[in-house]
Amino acid sequence: MRILILGGDGYLGWPTGLALSAQGAKVKLVDNFFRRDTIERLNVPPLFPTSDMHERANVWHRLSRIKIDTETGDATNYDYLKKTLEEFRPDAIIHFAEQPSAPYSMMGIEEAQFTLTNNLLSTLNLAYAVKETNPEIHIIKLGTMGEYGTPNIDIEEGFLQITHKGREDRFLFPRQAGSLYHTTKIQDTDLLFFYVRLAGLRVTDLMQGPVYGFLVPEMQDDTNLSTVFNYDAIFGTVLNRFMVQAVAGFPLTVYGKGGQKRGYLNLIDTVQCIRLALDTPAQAGELRILNQFTEVYTISELADAVISSARTLGIRATKENIENPRLEAEEHYYNPVHTKLFDLGLSPTLLSDDTIGPMLEKICEQKGQIRQEIIAPNCQWC
Amino acid sequence: MRILILGGDGYLGWPTGLALSAQGAKVKLVDNFFRRDTIERLNVPPLFPTSDMHERANVWHRLSRIKIDTETGDATNYDYLKKTLEEFRPDAIIHFAEQPSAPYSMMGIEEAQFTLTNNLLSTLNLAYAVKETNPEIHIIKLGTMGEYGTPNIDIEEGFLQITHKGREDRFLFPRQAGSLYHTTKIQDTDLLFFYVRLAGLRVTDLMQGPVYGFLVPEMQDDTNLSTVFNYDAIFGTVLNRFMVQAVAGFPLTVYGKGGQKRGYLNLIDTVQCIRLALDTPAQAGELRILNQFTEVYTISELADAVISSARTLGIRATKENIENPRLEAEEHYYNPVHTKLFDLGLSPTLLSDDTIGPMLEKICEQKGQIRQEIIAPNCQWC
Repeated sequence: MRILILGGDGYLGWPTGLALSAQGAKVKLVDNFFRRDTIERLNVPPLFPTSDMHERANVWHRLSRIKIDTETGDATNYDYLKKTLEEFRPDAIIHFAEQPSAPYSMMGIEEAQFTLTNNLLSTLNLAYAVKETNPEIHIIKLGTMGEYGTPNIDIEEGFLQITHKGREDRFLFPRQAGSLYHTTKIQDTDLLFFYVRLAGLRVTDLMQGPVYGFLVPEMQDDTNLSTVFNYDAIFGTVLNRFMVQAVAGFPLTVYGKGGQKRGYLNLIDTVQCIRLALDTPAQAGELRILNQFTEVYTISELADAVISSARTLGIRATKENIENPRLEAEEHYYNPVHTKLFDLGLSPTLLSDDTIGPMLEKICEQKGQIRQEIIAPNCQWC
Repeated sequence: MRILILGGDGYLGWPTGLALSAQGAKVKLVDNFFRRDTIERLNVPPLFPTSDMHERANVWHRLSRIKIDTETGDATNYDYLKKTLEEFRPDAIIHFAEQPSAPYSMMGIEEAQFTLTNNLLSTLNLAYAVKETNPEIHIIKLGTMGEYGTPNIDIEEGFLQITHKGREDRFLFPRQAGSLYHTTKIQDTDLLFFYVRLAGLRVTDLMQGPVYGFLVPEMQDDTNLSTVFNYDAIFGTVLNRFMVQAVAGFPLTVYGKGGQKRGYLNLIDTVQCIRLALDTPAQAGELRILNQFTEVYTISELADAVISSARTLGIRATKENIENPRLEAEEHYYNPVHTKLFDLGLSPTLLSDDTIGPMLEKICEQKGQIRQEIIAPNCQWC
């Protein structure tokens, strides 16, 4: 199977490419290095030095004899994207090439404009180029559980059957997001759904919860194969930040009351879910939406889990409730369905001392590199 | 009241500005002349020669002693838009500055990209600039009934109370559109709704049906005050096209079976609805959605109405069912609620021989200018 990964230098793109290539796929990674350039510009480097995808692909080739193609390129450039599809002839395309940070999208008008145009033009171009070159290509796009928000009804997997005044129809599940970034993810789903109906495309939309972790087995404990691990308030995901805060002796910063519930998953399971989606593609003319997380926690529970695991390693950590910069309910109903990926065979790696412990140990090795001003929650939404 | 109209040179923008200025408002029109430039590039001129907003504002000033400000400018330029808000200090802003044609958005990738970026960046900039300068400004944005598509349940006015598995919540009415243009209108609503919740903006979203007509009383039968009247398959709306086809002796081209039902309104009522929305603004933190049309017809019924009115003027017209280039159901349930504008006082001008007749007569005066190749339905969606 030939797989093109857009956003192949990223936190999820690189480990996905690594694992799929190890499993026998012919993989090509494309990235415009937005995230790499931006964390340098904002001076929020990752905890582990992480060379770019070109260099990491070379390391991987030396270690495994497996070749991953890499190319600097931008999915918002239609001509480039179409040419890449014509030349590489992928069976599937994984779209990770969106600006992935909610706080970044809320920094100011320029960041908002960039998030909107990058995320929607890349998705439009992808749908259009697939329609024009080969509508059989399976598109897998990363969505987010954040598109649903926190409604007072159970969250279904993508679609909802609605009865109203005695009549019935099936709709996309109503979505209402808490950041501009999340709003663009609602919008990219609408774009893909339109081209699915117009041109019979095959699309899988993975509504993913926040991911944690930075190790997948194919990295073989070689830090030259690491994925980018940010722990700042812009690009760092919450559990990753908590682990670094614990190691650094900084209180775990819980936004508001901490009753915000979300569905989480380990990076290992992100990679597994992508493979499961590839193995059983969406049908022609189908927008298949899968809710991608393994377990639900409140933010407070998540902090407690890290504090408890840290204690077993002799690290004393505490939590602190701070003012919430986000637009979100801090106490709410939350009951999202997530059965389809389990039906496809998902075998989850759940949160426990056994999974948090080894990550904390790795972070401890880098303790001297942790920068306090990066740990601190310094972003206000505007 | 100080009113800024974005897209003030357009089919709806100009008559709206004219009428509001006549009613005493201080009006400023801004336009980037996209439509004017595009109909020239595509060689599909309007039926009546129509000078640009600067010249028409001069004519209006000479006739009425009323001054309308006009400025060439682009709402996708944030700095320009913010400066305009700071200097003009509007009480309300009417956002007509979107690419308004579904067929145009389906012509190719460049037109698709332009529609997406123009419509969403202009809306993002507007919400952001209002948030930054004066959140009390009432934003009135033109939406379209096409956002709802043709669901098998009754269409409510913007929101739907949903009961699911014994629990309840209120959501934006689920929307599913039939063109890229209509999809961007779903997306601009999502953008505005987000900033309403974030910053307490006051927004009215007018879900308008296809508009017909080209005369408002303030034009006083002076063709130098006309609005742009396109009759081509890209920018011409359906009833306007039917009237020109009838006068030209061309069969009225009904797409497919002609059972497509839509809610229509006269240009006079568009202007009236805008005024009603201005007179009773949305609350702070409210996204108010009003379904803006006066009566529902199938496309076939609309053609029949024109044929019948033409006959009273001695014009023999026929209709012809042609292949449908659009993604739409040709026979479907359609029962949209539209009571809120009537509650605000809407007094409709309905379709009849009395309203179609005078328009047909005006078109007859220009019969020699009608170009057959512009009348013909020549666009395929891709």
